[in-house]
Amino acid sequence: MSAFDPAVFSTTSRFELDHLTIGGVSASDLAEQFGTPLFVVDEADFKSRAFSWKSALEESFGEKSGSVYYAAKSFLAKEIARWVDGVGIGIDVCTGGELAVAIAVNFPASRIEMHGNNKSEAEIRSAIEYGVRTIVVDSFFEIERVARIAKELVKVQKVLIRVTPGVEAHTHEFISTAHEDVKFGFSLASGAAWDAISAIHGESSLELIGLHSHIGSQIFKSEGFAAAAQKLITLLARYRDTYGKELPELDLGGGYGIAYLPGEVTLNPLMIMNELAQIVKDECAQSGLSLPTISIEPGRAIVGPSTTTLYTVGTTKDVELDGGTSRKYVSVDGGMSDNIRPALYGAEYLAIVANRLPLGPTANSRVVGKHCESGDIIIREIALSADVQPGDLLAVPATGAYGYSMASNYNHLPRPAVIAVIDGSARLIVRREQIADLLALEI
Amino acid sequence: MSAFDPAVFSTTSRFELDHLTIGGVSASDLAEQFGTPLFVVDEADFKSRAFSWKSALEESFGEKSGSVYYAAKSFLAKEIARWVDGVGIGIDVCTGGELAVAIAVNFPASRIEMHGNNKSEAEIRSAIEYGVRTIVVDSFFEIERVARIAKELVKVQKVLIRVTPGVEAHTHEFISTAHEDVKFGFSLASGAAWDAISAIHGESSLELIGLHSHIGSQIFKSEGFAAAAQKLITLLARYRDTYGKELPELDLGGGYGIAYLPGEVTLNPLMIMNELAQIVKDECAQSGLSLPTISIEPGRAIVGPSTTTLYTVGTTKDVELDGGTSRKYVSVDGGMSDNIRPALYGAEYLAIVANRLPLGPTANSRVVGKHCESGDIIIREIALSADVQPGDLLAVPATGAYGYSMASNYNHLPRPAVIAVIDGSARLIVRREQIADLLALEI
Repeated sequence: MSAFDPAVFSTTSRFELDHLTIGGVSASDLAEQFGTPLFVVDEADFKSRAFSWKSALEESFGEKSGSVYYAAKSFLAKEIARWVDGVGIGIDVCTGGELAVAIAVNFPASRIEMHGNNKSEAEIRSAIEYGVRTIVVDSFFEIERVARIAKELVKVQKVLIRVTPGVEAHTHEFISTAHEDVKFGFSLASGAAWDAISAIHGESSLELIGLHSHIGSQIFKSEGFAAAAQKLITLLARYRDTYGKELPELDLGGGYGIAYLPGEVTLNPLMIMNELAQIVKDECAQSGLSLPTISIEPGRAIVGPSTTTLYTVGTTKDVELDGGTSRKYVSVDGGMSDNIRPALYGAEYLAIVANRLPLGPTANSRVVGKHCESGDIIIREIALSADVQPGDLLAVPATGAYGYSMASNYNHLPRPAVIAVIDGSARLIVRREQIADLLALEI
Repeated sequence: MSAFDPAVFSTTSRFELDHLTIGGVSASDLAEQFGTPLFVVDEADFKSRAFSWKSALEESFGEKSGSVYYAAKSFLAKEIARWVDGVGIGIDVCTGGELAVAIAVNFPASRIEMHGNNKSEAEIRSAIEYGVRTIVVDSFFEIERVARIAKELVKVQKVLIRVTPGVEAHTHEFISTAHEDVKFGFSLASGAAWDAISAIHGESSLELIGLHSHIGSQIFKSEGFAAAAQKLITLLARYRDTYGKELPELDLGGGYGIAYLPGEVTLNPLMIMNELAQIVKDECAQSGLSLPTISIEPGRAIVGPSTTTLYTVGTTKDVELDGGTSRKYVSVDGGMSDNIRPALYGAEYLAIVANRLPLGPTANSRVVGKHCESGDIIIREIALSADVQPGDLLAVPATGAYGYSMASNYNHLPRPAVIAVIDGSARLIVRREQIADLLALEI
């Protein structure tokens, strides 16, 4: 009896008789060699997902397929940037720190896009100096800033306008509003997006190449993308009508959903890209526009399913609840410092016993961390084998996105190591933090 | 016109004609010298609050006053540990990392208490080796573990039992239940707390010195503490009746509330300690017990109000909302990476313009960070001067607790510097993270 579900784990994960293996390496061996908590990235899985998005975009849009930009915010490390480069896709960075990682591995500037609602002068300068392909401008102040810095550096910087089209997509539904109450972008409805076009045209050091929109996270249906594409294409047509030429690019952002729990699905790249292509082609045809080059920004959809967190159980406790039921608290050696998504968003995860075949009945369990905080919960409610005990390994799948990326040192817990597994071997890609690291910034 | 409210800022903060000063240093000078975002700790304020809790405990409980343990989880750095030591109070650590900071400044072991629901063997060993005064045991597995390690080290370790008394306090009300659905401690109602006493008595390397309870956070009234004290004293009486001797100590934990917004109050230490003393004395008298030594664990109540975060405004944006209203988005150079409490708990903060006297009318504003996430909000709704512009400094008070402590590198943002200000001078206590630090763990 094991709750192993291949749909939620990375593609090379297997439950073999009595233990979990990832990339051909047993979870127990990984824990012994690298310690826990441990982020285990399935290298083949990561690369194959990255490649799937690239080929889906190319198949659906043909010669009009632009870039797949990996959304670095979901998880970035030098080795990850090397993989992204190796697959031949681009990277979307939104701070100087993320850009610095890309620069550290000589990531081709021609495949870097820079985002952010509040880029600093230093970040903009660094991006233009390195020669990033596009900067997605997000405010009027920023248009002035990017223009001025590009001019100082004697460069012409390609820019996209981040447009808020009045579409918010939430998993299985989308909301269409006139106005979006968000910090990002230029509103279509208020005319700000149109004004941004004029502002950019007024700057000789900027070259406007197109529009960008991003409508949300964990999206599983194309309706939201369709609504946003429709609105953006209307703006492209107005541009053509006014300026007598067409803007060549459209970036539809990210937000493609993945499975966290058994029974959930991970969006099929080819399916959603085909749907998007149909929508964009229809809309362009209706407006008499040629098809723009289409780019996308998957992050979670590439790294999320690739990664499994391994924890060691430290203690368990059966707690009686009012009403005569009980709950088994299973405490692991990490917690909200390595995965804040359950506390922050109410995100749900699966866990399985990874080091042995658990026996006997299950118990109503809660997987918690070791922080001094009641809300330090990894899984609020799960049926785990009642015989889970200290020393057992728990594997939590689909932790690749916004896990390590949002990790903290709360309670002075060192951040876990991150390892890559492939073809039966494992290697460090981010080493485990040590007490000395925690003290390194102190006077 | 300034929204400066001395009740929310640290005690040496002043708005002088046209700018904020803290510890006699102007916010603009601090920003210029140390950069932003910046955590500014008012050293005199911190020490005076720490001392207030110490003297309130002593005044209220006389010779039966135990230790004030500063709750390190709220914010810990070497310099903070030195201040805590200097005031002569103790420290409550809950991981090996927090203990390591105390050890790094030779904090007296006799004033250290160790907490945690899932202490590792290494953490327990380190604590016993260093000679911490008490370990608050939290599970049956842990009793066995602490006993075994103490035996190996040929020591007798003083322990407190963390009891879950069935009392949850939430700000202005408390809930009394038979059972508590939390990962911490031994339940009183289920008999687990009583069984823990026997288990500890069976271990020759453990010395049970008393009971501990912690009932919540941001508590402003004594009723919850009273209910918990009452239940714990009933257990102390049962102990006396069974074993023919009295347990000498009672630790009532922390959770003392502070003001975040104008109109809120910060709990007065002497007032709440006097109330607690009356309750504990009455309950003990009724049970015929001598008064135990009383300890408490304020964290937020010491460091929270001492600290102000300074941000620089990077960009602003007026966004039209449905219904004809509008909102000014004010983007600062930090965000959820240096203060996750608004996103995590819906916590509310104040902000004021710190570098000048803002003029004219106010605008319905939202203070947001620079992360690529819509939820990256510091203040959801605030009337800020409509003339706030890029380059302005914003000061957000009462950020000392669970700000830096929970900070992350989300979006590869380096963590801010922390400085101490006192008597007109400022000095670094935690230096600003650099890009090189962000890459230090990478392979």
